[in-house]
Amino acid sequence: MNSKSFIPPQRILMGPGPSNVHPRVLEAMARPTIGHLDPKFIELMDDIKSLLRYTFQTENEVTFPVSGPGSVGMETCLVNLIEPGMKVLVCVNGVFGGRMKDIVERCGAQPVVVEAQWGSAIDPQKFEDALKQNPDIKLTAFVHAETSTGARSDIKALAEISHKYNCIAIADTVTSLGGIPVKVDEWNLDITYSGSQKCLSCPPGLSPVTFNDRSLHAIKNRKTKVQSWFMDLNLITSYWGTGSRRSYHHTAPINALYGLHEALLVLKEEGLENSWNRHRKNCEIVIAGLEKLGLKTFVNEDERLPELITVTVPEGIDEAEVRKFLLEKHNIEIGAGLGTLAGKIWRIGLMGYTSNEENISKCLNGLKEALAKFN
Amino acid sequence: MNSKSFIPPQRILMGPGPSNVHPRVLEAMARPTIGHLDPKFIELMDDIKSLLRYTFQTENEVTFPVSGPGSVGMETCLVNLIEPGMKVLVCVNGVFGGRMKDIVERCGAQPVVVEAQWGSAIDPQKFEDALKQNPDIKLTAFVHAETSTGARSDIKALAEISHKYNCIAIADTVTSLGGIPVKVDEWNLDITYSGSQKCLSCPPGLSPVTFNDRSLHAIKNRKTKVQSWFMDLNLITSYWGTGSRRSYHHTAPINALYGLHEALLVLKEEGLENSWNRHRKNCEIVIAGLEKLGLKTFVNEDERLPELITVTVPEGIDEAEVRKFLLEKHNIEIGAGLGTLAGKIWRIGLMGYTSNEENISKCLNGLKEALAKFN
Repeated sequence: MNSKSFIPPQRILMGPGPSNVHPRVLEAMARPTIGHLDPKFIELMDDIKSLLRYTFQTENEVTFPVSGPGSVGMETCLVNLIEPGMKVLVCVNGVFGGRMKDIVERCGAQPVVVEAQWGSAIDPQKFEDALKQNPDIKLTAFVHAETSTGARSDIKALAEISHKYNCIAIADTVTSLGGIPVKVDEWNLDITYSGSQKCLSCPPGLSPVTFNDRSLHAIKNRKTKVQSWFMDLNLITSYWGTGSRRSYHHTAPINALYGLHEALLVLKEEGLENSWNRHRKNCEIVIAGLEKLGLKTFVNEDERLPELITVTVPEGIDEAEVRKFLLEKHNIEIGAGLGTLAGKIWRIGLMGYTSNEENISKCLNGLKEALAKFN
Repeated sequence: MNSKSFIPPQRILMGPGPSNVHPRVLEAMARPTIGHLDPKFIELMDDIKSLLRYTFQTENEVTFPVSGPGSVGMETCLVNLIEPGMKVLVCVNGVFGGRMKDIVERCGAQPVVVEAQWGSAIDPQKFEDALKQNPDIKLTAFVHAETSTGARSDIKALAEISHKYNCIAIADTVTSLGGIPVKVDEWNLDITYSGSQKCLSCPPGLSPVTFNDRSLHAIKNRKTKVQSWFMDLNLITSYWGTGSRRSYHHTAPINALYGLHEALLVLKEEGLENSWNRHRKNCEIVIAGLEKLGLKTFVNEDERLPELITVTVPEGIDEAEVRKFLLEKHNIEIGAGLGTLAGKIWRIGLMGYTSNEENISKCLNGLKEALAKFN
């Protein structure tokens, strides 16, 4: 055991997340810890909720960060809505849709799956057909930005269809929030969750969520208890709720919340639209650079995420060698493919604070060097 | 909304947790974020596991921090062992035993409860009687240091009895680990969980756990899937497991883990026995000081926790006024009673970095002032 303080290397994080954390966020996390029921902390919680409402573009009262990584956010949203024996429509076009399906099954419910090829968006027509064929479905779940493939689905359309069939819709915006438009109220998303470590430029460990009244009404009318104590929204909201009197539920991760607050502030100062534009503009630079290197993107242009670009590994190249070279020689992290895409793609993240021209230029130069070396 | 950076006050945290965080830990958390599959991060994970083995006094291979607060650690331990229809012996002598019972029920199992008065330890004889009467029980769960009351139970004895009746034993050591002896291997505790924000002097948000072979064998022989995806040990250990190849499960809270690593290092440098002695010695100073003020401790001496002293609120005193005065005038946080003890006790924490003579002296002086003022 190496019993000394850990001094991490300074990496350029261009994988699927975490992205680079804004220096102001790092600084905020080092501030002195206070109690989780301290009146000053309650003020901070209120500020975080307001900033999250801006970020999600919603007026939803129940908007707060779950005290756990994005997967806890996902599970929290699902377990609060699912009761045993229910049928749930789940869209699967990558790892994270697959994870939703797994959770649905663990809740004793039956997933009805709408699939799309990995790297493609969910087809709204297939989605509607599935709802038409299964009139007993009352809950749908889909991923906006599939982190495993780099494909964007039209969640506005999917939410609209869900409501046409009287369903509540859950949207995963882990990799989209802050990077591309996510308009919870305008798009009528009933439940939306995200993660701190992508376009919000914050370390991993928190999962912002927002619930509209329709979804809260459904939760209130459950016949059974939520299967998880920690994730039971009825209990969590007694702590994250309104008013100055908050009751103890769990001990919130104080310093991580200092970080999230600062990150949301940074994003608000930039402005959401400016952030979306920056991500789009920088994506164009990367795409042009990749084309120059003779590399092909994995996702069609109209479904491509600007904040997470997937690249097809050229024939004959050992993709792991390239990633290792970038990390060791240039301190640049890019991501590998997951699941069926392992070995076949790279995932280049341009999220939040990472997304700037200097990082792009370093990454393209590194890739050029690597391709010459390993070809 | 107050859209500016949050600068917390510098509090002396003498409540039930979080305790004050060591400055080295705060500094560590502000270091640059790296990827959760970065080879350097894998090294850090191995270091954390080793340091946790020292802290828990165990050789258990499966020893790691769950990516969530102590309540997620609690739920993780329970859901991995429980299958629907099982009977589980749960000891309840405060809020946290009650929480365990709630989780057991949400898992579709039947809790058999051994109760003790709040403020008292669990009686091993009653524990054994319950197991004798319920030979179909295969799992027991109990709290070492009841954070809601300040009482310590003899978990070595409870584990021994559990094994006599062929049960697996789960021990909550959230408020004990680092402050009083917790000897996982010597006491033969099958499953043990804790929290980062008590005697480890780290911010809240992580829950160290350790599983011995007997418990892993039981998990392997489950007939049903663990009801939580996030908490399924089979999946988590593919990430926190052995070897250099780790597969992705969730994105670990990188910077929080920097903090935990540093906190465990600080504890190792002091030495566990020295830390235990410091907590015991400082408790004696507080007890003497409280007696001088005419205050009575809530728990009998032989069951009292040195790191969390509960004090009976004197007749005629508004306990909330006293806490408010200490916080506003002296920046000292002490805790209120929970549940049935609300309004009746204060909880004075002397955990980890908080436990030193300067803080004690400030707290006793503040209490003296408050008692004079509000009497």
